[in-house]
Amino acid sequence: MKSKFIVIEGLEGAGKTTARNAIVETLREKGIQDIVFTREPGGTPLAEQLRVLVKQGIEGEQVTDKAELLMLYAARVQLVETVIKPALARGAWVIGDRHDLSSQAYQGGGRGLDVELMHTLRDAVLGDFRPDLTLYLDVTPEIGLQRARARGELDRIEQESLRFFERTRERYLMLAENDPTILSVDATQPLKEVTASLKATLSSWLAGQSA
Amino acid sequence: MKSKFIVIEGLEGAGKTTARNAIVETLREKGIQDIVFTREPGGTPLAEQLRVLVKQGIEGEQVTDKAELLMLYAARVQLVETVIKPALARGAWVIGDRHDLSSQAYQGGGRGLDVELMHTLRDAVLGDFRPDLTLYLDVTPEIGLQRARARGELDRIEQESLRFFERTRERYLMLAENDPTILSVDATQPLKEVTASLKATLSSWLAGQSA
Repeated sequence: MKSKFIVIEGLEGAGKTTARNAIVETLREKGIQDIVFTREPGGTPLAEQLRVLVKQGIEGEQVTDKAELLMLYAARVQLVETVIKPALARGAWVIGDRHDLSSQAYQGGGRGLDVELMHTLRDAVLGDFRPDLTLYLDVTPEIGLQRARARGELDRIEQESLRFFERTRERYLMLAENDPTILSVDATQPLKEVTASLKATLSSWLAGQSA
Repeated sequence: MKSKFIVIEGLEGAGKTTARNAIVETLREKGIQDIVFTREPGGTPLAEQLRVLVKQGIEGEQVTDKAELLMLYAARVQLVETVIKPALARGAWVIGDRHDLSSQAYQGGGRGLDVELMHTLRDAVLGDFRPDLTLYLDVTPEIGLQRARARGELDRIEQESLRFFERTRERYLMLAENDPTILSVDATQPLKEVTASLKATLSSWLAGQSA
């Protein structure tokens, strides 16, 4: 099977790390061994520096929404051009912890940035490069944040209001509904059941792919 | 007179610092005291961090042209929204060491990035915000780089090939020719004459502005 770019998406505390392990298991069962992991923002030394700026911000300075968005796209294009595309080209599968859909949901939905600006920027920067499959782990902000809090300190974005995460989730759901490459999994269930649904969803998708 | 945003542009070694002093003198002679200085990329703590990433790059990593461009725009929008617009709104004049024209010339001309991408990004990020006046100091790359080298070590961008700076200059000249808000000054002359031309050009422009 031609190598694919599979992205895991969802709010903080949706269970992305557990999902990643489930995806790897499923791929290995199909005999796929060459797998590259990425996370966004990040995944290259430059992109990781941008991740720190986005996540921690600057003491005493309000990061504007547009500056945040542009740093995210700088990190993304660097990762896509220098890591993801070369990996796919040599036949590796790529599993991404977040990709462009996060910007559409968090910056577009959560921060309320203009949808046309979001699409213009995405198309100008990424062209028609898109994941083959996005697995969206759907949780309510209440459940997600409770899990994230249990893990430790919250970063600049995780400290946003509940309303911010509600807007982000609404945008995720709306985009998932209108894009056949995004498959939703109910991530409010107990962990074992989430993993089982995710594996079933992925296996069924893989079965539908041409060799 | 309504406060203005005046930008100084030109290749490395064009004499932008000397030009800044000449502009300040001219404005003070007209009784303008409240002057804010900016430089790009930079001018806010976040933008200065992005400046370091753009200027120094990352050891062992090739910064892609698009990532560079997006970091420059992240820094620019942060500066425009948090420093330049508030300064103009309170009646201060702003003198900028570089602004958007640098991206059009260096990234568009020097690096050869698609002109439509450049314009799309500029318009999406900055809307119709533009300098009131840009003073472009025109030097050949040979003269400019000679002066820059005499000042000390060259950064990542200053180490580009002569051909890169020739393409950058060509773009500067083309853009200056088609934009009445960009006035060119021959900066290959001896310093005293450059300063005199610059002051004359600025004074004449100021005289033409409505009160």
